[in-house]
Amino acid sequence: MNYVLAVVTQFSNGADEVAIKARGKAICRAVDTAEIALNRFLQGIMKKEIITSTEEVETDAGKTNVSSIEIVLMHRV
Amino acid sequence: MNYVLAVVTQFSNGADEVAIKARGKAICRAVDTAEIALNRFLQGIMKKEIITSTEEVETDAGKTNVSSIEIVLMHRV
Repeated sequence: MNYVLAVVTQFSNGADEVAIKARGKAICRAVDTAEIALNRFLQGIMKKEIITSTEEVETDAGKTNVSSIEIVLMHRV
Repeated sequence: MNYVLAVVTQFSNGADEVAIKARGKAICRAVDTAEIALNRFLQGIMKKEIITSTEEVETDAGKTNVSSIEIVLMHRV
């Protein structure tokens, strides 16, 4: 719920767009955050775009690929 | 990798579009599946659209909401 609060707060503070980003297993939490914020808290806000990509991450065992998501919310025009 | 294979197989069998769907914690696996299939195996295929939504699911403890994702892949035109 902290992430939902962060999104709602940014819109309350006048943001036109808010981007929610996550990698790996946190991706489902980014989707939850967007869905809960839109369905329960935000009015007049819609999804602008959803982008998935692959990022290279440095670990102890060398470089590995991890999926990422970016969900951009914006004011409905 | 089984899901990646399933996607690649469907395109090999002549599919124009393949939709990858997941709910809850499996959402990150759907994103992984799409990313790996596109980056490593499929040529001339692109993401058509990514849709997230909220579904109501019946559990022992009653109805609960769960986030879901649908990633649609298609032939590049």
